[in-house]
Amino acid sequence: MLFAGLRVCSRVTQSLSCSARQQATLRTRFLATMAPATQAVNTSERLQALRKLMSKPDYNVAAVVVPSEDQHYSEYPATCDERRAFISGFTGSAGCAIITPTDAFLFTDGRYFLQAEKQLDRNWTLMKQGLPDVPTWQEFLWKKLPKCTRIGVDPTIVTASDADTIQKNLEPLESQLVSLKHNLVDLVWTNRPPRPTNGIYPLDLKYAGESHVQKITRLREEMRKKEMHAVVVNMLDEVAWLFNLRGSDIDYNPVFFAYAVLTPEKAHLFLNPAQIDDTLREHLGGHVDIHPYDSFFSYLRELGAEIGLHKKSRALVGDKASLAIVEAMGADNVVVARSPVADFKAVKNETEVEGFRQSHIRDGVALVRYFAWLEEQLNNGVELNECQVADQLEHYRAELDFFRGLSFPTISATGPNGAIIHYQPEPNDCAIVRRDQIYLCDSGAQFLDGTTDVTRTWHFGTATPEERRAFTRVLQGHIAIDAAVFPNGTTGYVIDSFARRPLWEDGLDFRHGTGHGVGHFLNVHEGPHGIGVRIAYNSTPLKSGMTVSDEPGYYADGRFGIRIENVIIVREAKTPNNFGEKGYLKFEHVTMCPIQKSLVDASLLSPKEGSWLDSYHAEVLEKLSPLLHADQRALAWLQRECSPL
Amino acid sequence: MLFAGLRVCSRVTQSLSCSARQQATLRTRFLATMAPATQAVNTSERLQALRKLMSKPDYNVAAVVVPSEDQHYSEYPATCDERRAFISGFTGSAGCAIITPTDAFLFTDGRYFLQAEKQLDRNWTLMKQGLPDVPTWQEFLWKKLPKCTRIGVDPTIVTASDADTIQKNLEPLESQLVSLKHNLVDLVWTNRPPRPTNGIYPLDLKYAGESHVQKITRLREEMRKKEMHAVVVNMLDEVAWLFNLRGSDIDYNPVFFAYAVLTPEKAHLFLNPAQIDDTLREHLGGHVDIHPYDSFFSYLRELGAEIGLHKKSRALVGDKASLAIVEAMGADNVVVARSPVADFKAVKNETEVEGFRQSHIRDGVALVRYFAWLEEQLNNGVELNECQVADQLEHYRAELDFFRGLSFPTISATGPNGAIIHYQPEPNDCAIVRRDQIYLCDSGAQFLDGTTDVTRTWHFGTATPEERRAFTRVLQGHIAIDAAVFPNGTTGYVIDSFARRPLWEDGLDFRHGTGHGVGHFLNVHEGPHGIGVRIAYNSTPLKSGMTVSDEPGYYADGRFGIRIENVIIVREAKTPNNFGEKGYLKFEHVTMCPIQKSLVDASLLSPKEGSWLDSYHAEVLEKLSPLLHADQRALAWLQRECSPL
Repeated sequence: MLFAGLRVCSRVTQSLSCSARQQATLRTRFLATMAPATQAVNTSERLQALRKLMSKPDYNVAAVVVPSEDQHYSEYPATCDERRAFISGFTGSAGCAIITPTDAFLFTDGRYFLQAEKQLDRNWTLMKQGLPDVPTWQEFLWKKLPKCTRIGVDPTIVTASDADTIQKNLEPLESQLVSLKHNLVDLVWTNRPPRPTNGIYPLDLKYAGESHVQKITRLREEMRKKEMHAVVVNMLDEVAWLFNLRGSDIDYNPVFFAYAVLTPEKAHLFLNPAQIDDTLREHLGGHVDIHPYDSFFSYLRELGAEIGLHKKSRALVGDKASLAIVEAMGADNVVVARSPVADFKAVKNETEVEGFRQSHIRDGVALVRYFAWLEEQLNNGVELNECQVADQLEHYRAELDFFRGLSFPTISATGPNGAIIHYQPEPNDCAIVRRDQIYLCDSGAQFLDGTTDVTRTWHFGTATPEERRAFTRVLQGHIAIDAAVFPNGTTGYVIDSFARRPLWEDGLDFRHGTGHGVGHFLNVHEGPHGIGVRIAYNSTPLKSGMTVSDEPGYYADGRFGIRIENVIIVREAKTPNNFGEKGYLKFEHVTMCPIQKSLVDASLLSPKEGSWLDSYHAEVLEKLSPLLHADQRALAWLQRECSPL
Repeated sequence: MLFAGLRVCSRVTQSLSCSARQQATLRTRFLATMAPATQAVNTSERLQALRKLMSKPDYNVAAVVVPSEDQHYSEYPATCDERRAFISGFTGSAGCAIITPTDAFLFTDGRYFLQAEKQLDRNWTLMKQGLPDVPTWQEFLWKKLPKCTRIGVDPTIVTASDADTIQKNLEPLESQLVSLKHNLVDLVWTNRPPRPTNGIYPLDLKYAGESHVQKITRLREEMRKKEMHAVVVNMLDEVAWLFNLRGSDIDYNPVFFAYAVLTPEKAHLFLNPAQIDDTLREHLGGHVDIHPYDSFFSYLRELGAEIGLHKKSRALVGDKASLAIVEAMGADNVVVARSPVADFKAVKNETEVEGFRQSHIRDGVALVRYFAWLEEQLNNGVELNECQVADQLEHYRAELDFFRGLSFPTISATGPNGAIIHYQPEPNDCAIVRRDQIYLCDSGAQFLDGTTDVTRTWHFGTATPEERRAFTRVLQGHIAIDAAVFPNGTTGYVIDSFARRPLWEDGLDFRHGTGHGVGHFLNVHEGPHGIGVRIAYNSTPLKSGMTVSDEPGYYADGRFGIRIENVIIVREAKTPNNFGEKGYLKFEHVTMCPIQKSLVDASLLSPKEGSWLDSYHAEVLEKLSPLLHADQRALAWLQRECSPL
């Protein structure tokens, strides 16, 4: 799935764990406090209560910033952390609210202008970021607010680096970013959903491939190399990876609310004790000290004081760490830098790689059953909407071994909806899937042994020459990444152009990255690497063992969307030479699902590209057909779709 | 030619202008003060004299930095500016000397370790930059010199941005960079060659395509947009371009010593009045005020004071401007930024583009005559060394219309010498060109209507399968750039990987950029754009009208070198779509010379690549054959080499 936050809950809950169902219930309760996506909620009372607090001597601020993020900078926040949605009424995934005694501003980007216009009531001014002369919310603070303004933030949900930039720009104006003792939105949020407390469970070594003790040892070695006294881990997927634990506090991401701190002597894990049991304590063993989640900041204050007092080497905090973390430790006692845990986690071990292979083969079975079913339904004239068909896919997935829910909400889009890059069908308001339109399906699942993410684009009737040409260009871009060989040290920024070259030839392009990292039974989007035009991707060379998606696309506004996505894994390549003694790398694709041949204009393909497609299909057929004997419709469909060009 | 400084004088002077011959004489005189390239010069007396000056109260410095650069940051300095070569004895193109009362250090890179070891006498310590634990010369100043050191520099030959970095790093040590009133090397350099004073001449509008008045008007518009009161131009090729003037003060580069300053009212040109005549004054007209070269800094002091006094908007000085320029104007009165003149100059107008086409066709005639001649000589067993054959190429070029000398010293390299990327044959010590080895020839010329730069690699006997495979990979990389289509906004950093992809597939690569900008009857290397892995290339999108070389290669140390280089021009592409309304770009190749088919392993080529080669050869044949009737050997050779694969 394209990298950008999206969140709603799954419609198919019977296959999910008890905790996920509980989470879905919480969300339903939360949504009841909100208006539907097309209607404004009355925010007058909330704002009045908030403004009253702002003026109290305890806080005394003339502006309050309410960002979308939670305290772990999660891509998908839990409902209890959707403060910006609560205060503004706007439920889109990206946005920031700024409230002053007289005004309220909601900043969001082009994807959400329409939705925000519908959801904001008259208390709010919509700030359309990206349009000329519209400041970002950060710029607004120093460009539009009066001098000497005290601007309140909850320091636990603003990153230290963001706060630093803002503070520097406020200084000439004698304005000030004020860290508030309490989150003022929480104080006015009656019926705020509780923080999820779902069970946490260990991930067996047979799936993780490396024990948490080994991971902690490796991280300590890294600490020594970097001369760091401690590492503070604030990202939920990093904590889950480090201790080989999983949970279900956040939709689609098998994580749980926790912080961790590693020192040379101890590993400290901060979580809600109600979420763990003796099995889990046993799993962690004597190597890990468990503390209550709420004691994290007081522990940091002690650790910071200790570092300061004994002039120890400093603590490393990740670059997504909150201002509150840096303030608790004392800025002089920390180094804000790339998280070494993120770097470790990105490189999958051989057990994880094999898990990726196996989970993707299983996932392929569900995909093939689904597309075969869908084709038959459409051929038979059955009327089904985008949500109904997506639910069928989820049903097939739910039957698979080790299935633990979806990895993100399925993008199931027919015709023009496929051109809306982050389209999300609404059960009560979505299109009927049509046989004479292109259908784009981007979906994925969580398995104990891996996370999947796959996009296929189908035309179940007869495609136009334009659609076939565009599909072929996208396919050529996909193949160009899949077949690339490159030396160690090469980044995803540098090879991104391979995916675009065939599209560029026709004057086509796509406005998203080519690929994102994929977690191992963790978040479907993970860094720090990726393939794309974001310059940050140029800081992380691709390494053997990294997973990444390969998903070029093309979108004709108002008409159709095309995307072809596999998950691929960086592997060592055997090249006839090894110039520069750097070692060369290649990709292995693990996604197993046919790519529609009848959408390919074979005259555009080079002989090599044609062979690639045939050999991919031969591989898919070989791996999936033994698993499809119980579904003869799917098997026949697979055999037809995997025949040579 | 690969981008990295190289300079010696041409061996074929009869075709050159009088001034170039004069310049060659100056160099001979200079070289007499130096030992041969394989022998050390005794620097004891020079160093003693320099150290005596260092200790005088006027200067009072405990270290002196002597960089390679001249006051215009020229790639090829004039002999009078080769201060580092004089003081150290080391004549390589890259290096920096640091002299203290007791020691003398020469910093250079891997290309020159051997040469420096031979040329430095016992006064010197060679600092091998690039090896582990060896600091750069800049780092040396703050890492190795004692605290509170006064470090002397001639501020006219250190860039302001370099000086800024150094000063910041010296501050904690209480050391200091001291701008000296005089260049101390000049004071001890007896028999220092005089600064060249060769005639300056106007470049006719029929070659330049835009009058200097129009250029000045455009630059003033840019000044207004950027709210700049003035632009200071310190690069010699920028001055030459702006005023449509050319000279011959620097080898291979048709430039002259000058500075320029543009204000809203006046264009000021600072040059040696002895170098101009009435024709030139007439060409410049009333729009330009001519001042003596030596009055430049006093003018800047006045301009800076005026800006400071009247609080005018500041002056823009290019990012290669010297510390002396910034000091004279006052740091508060300038903005150091990319030179807008460089940006303008990089985009060729239609007259210049047509000049590029025509000069490259003429140049192709000389190349074809040369390679046909060389093949016959080798087939007949004639023994010729690398310099002798290069001279023959220069003879053919010298017969061409509008020829104004070479654009850089010819790289004529047989067998293992081809793998030395910056190889330069010495007349008295070079290899015999062998029929059973790969021969690499990288050469170019200056014409009134354009500058050429072309590399061809030949095997006149039977190449090995390894050589043919490597040549084919290089050719595929060359074609990948030539045939690329990409949207406006794309940089050469992003498409560089196209050239490497076919090499990477075999575990091959090359350690230089893929392409550099090419001046129009100006420097063969010009910025700010280029195609390569230098991140600076990511700051300048390729624009229609930009010239760039396309020169991937492969080098097998000790055995052979391969490079295929054409000059290509960015042009608008007609694509079937125009996604994002950005407009799409492509390349037009202007270099006209066959690429050896018998070195191609056709089985590796895609059908498209095969067609590219055939169609390129058809174009070369069509354009060159009408001009080769006087040389039947060359015509027959051309027809054979341009036949389809």
